[in-house]
Amino acid sequence: MALDLGAWSAAHLQQVERALDGWVCASAPVSLEHGAPAELIAAMRYAVLDGGKRLRPLLVLAAWESVSAELVDWAGAGASDRGPYEAALRAACAVELIHAYSLVHDDMPCMDNDVLRRGKPTVHVKFGEAGALLAGDALQALAFELLTPEAGMPAAQQARLCSLLARAAGSAGMAGGQAIDLASVGVALTEDQLRQMHRLKTGALLQASVMMGAALGEISDAAQRGLQDYGAAIGLAFQVVDDILDVTADSVTLGKTAGKDASHDKPTYVSVLGLERSAAYAQKLLAQALLALRQSGLHQTQTLQGLAAMVVNRVS
Amino acid sequence: MALDLGAWSAAHLQQVERALDGWVCASAPVSLEHGAPAELIAAMRYAVLDGGKRLRPLLVLAAWESVSAELVDWAGAGASDRGPYEAALRAACAVELIHAYSLVHDDMPCMDNDVLRRGKPTVHVKFGEAGALLAGDALQALAFELLTPEAGMPAAQQARLCSLLARAAGSAGMAGGQAIDLASVGVALTEDQLRQMHRLKTGALLQASVMMGAALGEISDAAQRGLQDYGAAIGLAFQVVDDILDVTADSVTLGKTAGKDASHDKPTYVSVLGLERSAAYAQKLLAQALLALRQSGLHQTQTLQGLAAMVVNRVS
Repeated sequence: MALDLGAWSAAHLQQVERALDGWVCASAPVSLEHGAPAELIAAMRYAVLDGGKRLRPLLVLAAWESVSAELVDWAGAGASDRGPYEAALRAACAVELIHAYSLVHDDMPCMDNDVLRRGKPTVHVKFGEAGALLAGDALQALAFELLTPEAGMPAAQQARLCSLLARAAGSAGMAGGQAIDLASVGVALTEDQLRQMHRLKTGALLQASVMMGAALGEISDAAQRGLQDYGAAIGLAFQVVDDILDVTADSVTLGKTAGKDASHDKPTYVSVLGLERSAAYAQKLLAQALLALRQSGLHQTQTLQGLAAMVVNRVS
Repeated sequence: MALDLGAWSAAHLQQVERALDGWVCASAPVSLEHGAPAELIAAMRYAVLDGGKRLRPLLVLAAWESVSAELVDWAGAGASDRGPYEAALRAACAVELIHAYSLVHDDMPCMDNDVLRRGKPTVHVKFGEAGALLAGDALQALAFELLTPEAGMPAAQQARLCSLLARAAGSAGMAGGQAIDLASVGVALTEDQLRQMHRLKTGALLQASVMMGAALGEISDAAQRGLQDYGAAIGLAFQVVDDILDVTADSVTLGKTAGKDASHDKPTYVSVLGLERSAAYAQKLLAQALLALRQSGLHQTQTLQGLAAMVVNRVS
């Protein structure tokens, strides 16, 4: 049976949205004697809810599906048999919280100074700079909180998920890539240097999404390697396409400011390779991702295949 | 034998400093093709090393000692028998990294806008605002990374430590307290509201330090409750004394800007209770902390007793 990626995504996204909503609210202090934590929670909710493609949660869930012994319609399952699905949802939402916090901090005046995100004013525009700083900090902590004892998964899995997420978020991952990005304004990078920057800045968390989904099951070394290569390829492809869209799409379609890389004098795949070669490179990475899945020996990779194609062929 | 708290602290602090140094460096990306991650690591090191009383790591280690079956001279032990001590050191350093990141972000212009910390220019003065933002973000991630699989402790312990740390750092802990603090500038708080703010802002992480140390051993419910009450009392006492020192000490002694709470029109224990009643309240909290230790049924609480007295009777 052919995969209906749209239906698959819609069913899981509904669960992801509901879970994010519940968990961000649940992070409020028990006693709210005055308004400030309520304001913090409001900023966190604003940063996380009603927006985004949720690519990372979908990758977690699809990777988990690929290593699961049997296919179960988890998104449609009743509350009573949701044990393993809740664990996967927690992993999916944890990655999304890290992604959301990084956007909040990236948009701040001392970083990209952006006022538009997902078609709405950015968090610091709406809640002030201090509010945005704290909301981002609290979202990062909440991501790790989601993965701990209440998660209903074996402790070894919790620890493994925390480890994957922490490494992908930190100085050897996303934050490190951001630092290279900051230092690269107005600098002519080689293609290798650009790849290194993006591997850290966006690739690390996308790859971690895949590996966190895989960590929810038991897999062979070959499957582990296959998913790792798949994650690396789509992580890079995502950024190449982002760079292409930054010059070819408009702000309304993107829901964020278009053309900002060029106006900030940042090196991009388009500035280094040109448009045509960038598009060809994205297709080459898609082929690499699909090959890695075939070599993984895993049988249920339809959804991962579909997500890879979606990453490369998206228009916003 | 009477406890020599100075010698105990000196021995452990040497290990903590060495461990922090090693772990912050180890967080660098493997391939440093250009300078930016090096700059990020430099900012992280600047924020963490050569400064601070390291109260939180000492609380972790003292609490661990209190629940350990036998007293071992871990700080003096050779590398080969350091397994459990390394686990405790990781917990100790993880808490310190969260504390260090919070100081970096608190000092930023959009928060307290402070230029002096531990007698040195603050991180954003030295590395720019974006550098400080990223260094803080990366330090938070590193804290959780320290607690994961390589830590050489059972997975259930890792998960428990991550949970305690994440809750204490997030919106129901430190970040939530910061948000109340921000919203309280120029607002007249009751003593109850002030206590609630400080329970979250500084108390949560100090209490978590004690509970993380305790989580490294097996303890009774009574001991658990006793250490929880001890942690709550010294957490609050720390802040009361901080508020007292803010008006009675000078910037050189404190290593940070004195009198800034009053100049920022922030509510403090001194502004709410006055100096004399604040000092009496700190002593009352010390008595509560010592009583909680006696009620815990734990035998090796000398160091925790000494640290409580140090918190209340410190002059900087």
